[in-house]
Amino acid sequence: MFSTAAHPHKRVGIAIGDHILPLTVMSELSLFRDERLNGDIFGRGSLNDFMALGKAVWDSGRADIQTALSVGGYFDTAEAIGRYFVPQREATMHLPAHIGDYTDFYSSKEHATNVGTMFRDPNNALLPNWLHLPVAYHGRASSVVLSGTSIKRPLGQTNPTDAPSPTFGPSKLMDFELEMGFFIGSGNELGEPIPVESAADHIFGLVLVNDWSARDIQKWEYQPLGPFLAKNLGTTISPWVVPLAALEPFRVDGPVQEPEPLPYLQTNGRHAYNIHLEVAIQSQQMDAPQVVCRSNHKHLYWNMSQQVAHHTITGCNLRPGDLLASGTISGPTADSYGSLLELTWRGSKPIPLADGSERRFLQDGDTVILTAYAQGDGYRIGFGEARGTIV
Amino acid sequence: MFSTAAHPHKRVGIAIGDHILPLTVMSELSLFRDERLNGDIFGRGSLNDFMALGKAVWDSGRADIQTALSVGGYFDTAEAIGRYFVPQREATMHLPAHIGDYTDFYSSKEHATNVGTMFRDPNNALLPNWLHLPVAYHGRASSVVLSGTSIKRPLGQTNPTDAPSPTFGPSKLMDFELEMGFFIGSGNELGEPIPVESAADHIFGLVLVNDWSARDIQKWEYQPLGPFLAKNLGTTISPWVVPLAALEPFRVDGPVQEPEPLPYLQTNGRHAYNIHLEVAIQSQQMDAPQVVCRSNHKHLYWNMSQQVAHHTITGCNLRPGDLLASGTISGPTADSYGSLLELTWRGSKPIPLADGSERRFLQDGDTVILTAYAQGDGYRIGFGEARGTIV
Repeated sequence: MFSTAAHPHKRVGIAIGDHILPLTVMSELSLFRDERLNGDIFGRGSLNDFMALGKAVWDSGRADIQTALSVGGYFDTAEAIGRYFVPQREATMHLPAHIGDYTDFYSSKEHATNVGTMFRDPNNALLPNWLHLPVAYHGRASSVVLSGTSIKRPLGQTNPTDAPSPTFGPSKLMDFELEMGFFIGSGNELGEPIPVESAADHIFGLVLVNDWSARDIQKWEYQPLGPFLAKNLGTTISPWVVPLAALEPFRVDGPVQEPEPLPYLQTNGRHAYNIHLEVAIQSQQMDAPQVVCRSNHKHLYWNMSQQVAHHTITGCNLRPGDLLASGTISGPTADSYGSLLELTWRGSKPIPLADGSERRFLQDGDTVILTAYAQGDGYRIGFGEARGTIV
Repeated sequence: MFSTAAHPHKRVGIAIGDHILPLTVMSELSLFRDERLNGDIFGRGSLNDFMALGKAVWDSGRADIQTALSVGGYFDTAEAIGRYFVPQREATMHLPAHIGDYTDFYSSKEHATNVGTMFRDPNNALLPNWLHLPVAYHGRASSVVLSGTSIKRPLGQTNPTDAPSPTFGPSKLMDFELEMGFFIGSGNELGEPIPVESAADHIFGLVLVNDWSARDIQKWEYQPLGPFLAKNLGTTISPWVVPLAALEPFRVDGPVQEPEPLPYLQTNGRHAYNIHLEVAIQSQQMDAPQVVCRSNHKHLYWNMSQQVAHHTITGCNLRPGDLLASGTISGPTADSYGSLLELTWRGSKPIPLADGSERRFLQDGDTVILTAYAQGDGYRIGFGEARGTIV
């Protein structure tokens, strides 16, 4: 979703190099075979109505766009590009969808193991349910913001020393969490679970997600109902949604699941995705971002189809535009952990930065930048970035 | 929000006895002093736009409605009533608001104590944070449904015996939770907390809430991130929103808060509300509902202003139409507990029903009916009902 000064109405666009092809142009030129795409569907302020049309329509529209962009296609002239394409530098990006509900999973075994090791028992780091179901909680939809939005260091209650009474003030343990999320395309009716076999058909596309976390607030508040204020101060997503269909070439085997999941969670074939992930930090004193984490989406233990099937097994209804995030994606090595909590092992191993300072947790003025790409043979699918500065 | 066969477009209405005054009629007759209320604002399918206008406009509109309904007012003739009022029996009710986010608190000390006693340690039933902050979690907005919607018994994972592996099947421990919720009227910007002193101005009105709970699913899934599938299968609310302003005469002292809350949570004056609450069950074999719980909103330890202030202290933004529920409202006596879990003390004290059966948890075909009223001197404010049948 983007707008420009000359055209302030929000439109859906496709990133082509450093330009954007507005899909409203495709509609106005009647370049879609499906007539539902030749109306105003790409000019309604969000992707939700398009998402709701379902996978067959997305695929049809995607093929039409590829045709129009191919050699000999409608946009294969400098004149057409000059007339219709918009330079990305002129565009203001907007949230791609109206997010009705936001769910955050906890699907990286390495992350759950690290957290369990630090806060509970290294010998029983995973709780008994973890290998049997993709643990998740409901997040806050209202505070999902677009890349570039500053994040205010939150006030709140903390009790770092387990004193009789808590204290109040700014969080001292601000952290990022490297995640990816996916938007639900077509949803389901209340009471009608989505079978795991067809779950992927309900997934529209993926974005980067930074689930900012106030660790000190979280520690004090989270028992027994889970994280609340520690996570609802802001969640940053990247503006460009990469369709699941575009990631088909990057499917790989996921981790072996042992014990075998219950039948409603069993998937066959390759359901993991080889997507390279990076987190960089740039302090106010630094000239450039410094990469502090390199991870990969393929490390996730529970795949997206399993997440959809589990989310709906009780009958919970998903709606177009709902956002389901992965949870922190940590890899097996210490430089692949997806949060400062893990990278610095609760602050015991500070990270040296290029400006001579070091980080246990985020300081005011620190900018955190999540990026991702899938590397093909001679081409690369980029995810843009999810960027935010602590203020 | 209601519609009729003759007028299928959703409208806002006020319940007057067994009739409804459509507020669109007030608008069409220009009976509001504030011109913003004389447009189509009550015909837009939800209360959200009206909620967003803020307390001064609600109060002004409410005064105009009272004037029009008074002796000598516009509707003080049989002819006017016959022309404009709609019999409630002809109306289909709809969700009063588009609910962007739904939050559920845990603000009854008696409920938290009962649960802590049953599942943890009777001598330390309340967790250390409970007396310092209103514990809450994010709920699922998509599955909030209107009174009368049937609730499908959910499938899910359970592990009642702490076996090495869980089992799969229909929940065997379906329960209700007696709650009240309030709708946010005007919201706040991300990063801008709402001070506790002005928090009440952001509260539009109250509804009944049944937070259906699958206890066996909850027990297995909830560590460490809180309830998820056990609660997102459906949450029933009553259709009529009682404005907070209408409850002004029913303000009473709340429980003494000891220890004193942190300054951002301190309230002076009467912030509890004397609202009588009841839960009744009717099985398929019964001719009438049987009351199984009598409680009162005034038992809540944390008041609504404190809930709003706490929810936003980290900067979380509330939006018009957000629903904040109280958590189960249990009173001090065993017949005032707001869930079967507590009423039957985990099933150890089954409730005899009039059909000769007994209940530990809900059976298929059981209808649960929540009702409430505030009793004034010679008048009563009813809340309608939140009703649902387990199927």
